[in-house]
Amino acid sequence: MLKSRLHCFGARQPRLRTVGRLTPCRVASTTPPPSKSAAFDDFVDYILVLQKDILKSAEDLEITRGRQFVIDRWERDAANPNAGYGITCVLDDGEVLEKAAANISVVRGTLSAQRAQAMSSRGRGSIDPRGGQPYAAAAMSLVFHSAHPLIPTLRADVRLFQVGGEAWYGGGCDLTPSYLDEQDTREFHRFWKDVCDEYKPELYGDLKDWCDRYFYIPARKEHRGVGGIFFDDLSSNEAGFDVETFVRKVGDGILPSWLPIVARHRGEPFSDSQRQWQLLRRGRYIEFNLLYDRGIKFGLDGGRIESIMVSAPPLIAWKYNVVPEAGSPEDEVLKVLQKPRAWH
Amino acid sequence: MLKSRLHCFGARQPRLRTVGRLTPCRVASTTPPPSKSAAFDDFVDYILVLQKDILKSAEDLEITRGRQFVIDRWERDAANPNAGYGITCVLDDGEVLEKAAANISVVRGTLSAQRAQAMSSRGRGSIDPRGGQPYAAAAMSLVFHSAHPLIPTLRADVRLFQVGGEAWYGGGCDLTPSYLDEQDTREFHRFWKDVCDEYKPELYGDLKDWCDRYFYIPARKEHRGVGGIFFDDLSSNEAGFDVETFVRKVGDGILPSWLPIVARHRGEPFSDSQRQWQLLRRGRYIEFNLLYDRGIKFGLDGGRIESIMVSAPPLIAWKYNVVPEAGSPEDEVLKVLQKPRAWH
Repeated sequence: MLKSRLHCFGARQPRLRTVGRLTPCRVASTTPPPSKSAAFDDFVDYILVLQKDILKSAEDLEITRGRQFVIDRWERDAANPNAGYGITCVLDDGEVLEKAAANISVVRGTLSAQRAQAMSSRGRGSIDPRGGQPYAAAAMSLVFHSAHPLIPTLRADVRLFQVGGEAWYGGGCDLTPSYLDEQDTREFHRFWKDVCDEYKPELYGDLKDWCDRYFYIPARKEHRGVGGIFFDDLSSNEAGFDVETFVRKVGDGILPSWLPIVARHRGEPFSDSQRQWQLLRRGRYIEFNLLYDRGIKFGLDGGRIESIMVSAPPLIAWKYNVVPEAGSPEDEVLKVLQKPRAWH
Repeated sequence: MLKSRLHCFGARQPRLRTVGRLTPCRVASTTPPPSKSAAFDDFVDYILVLQKDILKSAEDLEITRGRQFVIDRWERDAANPNAGYGITCVLDDGEVLEKAAANISVVRGTLSAQRAQAMSSRGRGSIDPRGGQPYAAAAMSLVFHSAHPLIPTLRADVRLFQVGGEAWYGGGCDLTPSYLDEQDTREFHRFWKDVCDEYKPELYGDLKDWCDRYFYIPARKEHRGVGGIFFDDLSSNEAGFDVETFVRKVGDGILPSWLPIVARHRGEPFSDSQRQWQLLRRGRYIEFNLLYDRGIKFGLDGGRIESIMVSAPPLIAWKYNVVPEAGSPEDEVLKVLQKPRAWH
């Protein structure tokens, strides 16, 4: 009997093909569909360039193995070019990036009564709760799952939602480590505090708390990671600062906030036991995504499943009731996840 | 640099302990808390014996490695023995069973208005939609994740829910294979058809369809497995047959319906590529559990998280947009999952 029960995902798959690999195209050749809003088009142009820059920086990390992103452009509705499109970009099996995804989606449509009502009740005053208004939405979202247990998972996005001449922005950037490194965490939060401080003194504190609240798994009584910043539904009028330029600063900061951590740890040795703990912690990552994440719930309601599930970790383990020994490094990170700290 | 990026979960973890391993106890020593219903107590006695028999049969499969179940008894509320308890039993790293769980939960409480309303609207006429009635629920649920890609995952449960003197039963048994084996599938369905045929001619067809409908992932347009039988809310009065004895036949049939498949495949060689496909298919398993499973949603609302998440596969992989070649064995199983067949 040929036994390979503990064989891992990673080697090539002879009989499976990955759609999109056959026809790589570069993002620069992409033309967004026509739109009536210059501000919306500007944002789309911004995220297209941002995505391209991110792919370049990430591929630079993988220069020794030469791993590149698979770039998969898809249309929401082949019969209607105005319905929107996406560009899903995935790199896997890298030295640093076990799986990296940086995705764009640009969507236009008409608000359903149900969705309009939900938005209206969340305080978006200019939305008619009866629905029927045209909307446009654009986002760049990113998940980098590290191969190294000491390099945290990076998640980030920047988003624009536009209805009836009003624009609401959302976004954020946060870390999900398997092990706590205080220096990494402090520097990461310091980076985002500096970005926020240019706009409003209390902004970082508000968005840090928002992040801690959002990435929470009630059934585990655990926050998913050590946070960062997170925000939704911000408009310049209501927020009292220029949200549009702020969001671009957030987008621009995503990789610079994380790359110093990669540089610090990528050469460090790690053990099988650390790798196992990383796989177990990734279980929490997907629990949050599938049980609680609002974006994923929204996306699954008619979205493109593979572009949503691309955020899933490449390999995950679950074991019953694993409880780290008190005082161990595994226990140390849990303590912080159970009770978020102030990092500044 | 010590590299073990593709190391797999399975070896011992030096710094992590699994709660429950230290104080094994056998199920026979368990005394259920007092109850006012003889029928309820009878069912609890039945599932306690069933669980014990299942543990024994499963350990017999693992005789060469000597793997045994970890038995973890827990109380819902230490201050109130009537609130209920559970017995979570897990075996992992076996030759056949990469992870097996057979769990009991026995719960008593008072219906909240919200839950009573949901049940009443589902046709349970004797439930007061205002809530306040005492209820009792007992279940044995089982998931066996196979180490061998040609041995399907087995899922099964038997359940009793009792309110105001009325008893509703639920349960089922179904297969989730990574590869389609027509003989396995036909024999499994034949087994359950024979069980059902003793009660009502159309019963198997109804419960087979119910199973196909229930284990469905809308976002994937895929059924999770090749089905079996599934039912909920059956009372003898409404169903027109003796549901109580039927449910016991279902419980008794769980392992006998699956063991012939194990015997047929456990000695067969398999490839790394087949193992990879199995890990990818397990992604769908957890997607269903976390996104759609009613029992898990219900359990997470105040239940014991580790006893719920014990159903998670031991190791899972996600890769972007894997599409098997037309006509390959991987494609063959997908075709059946996309369009369930009649197996009789």
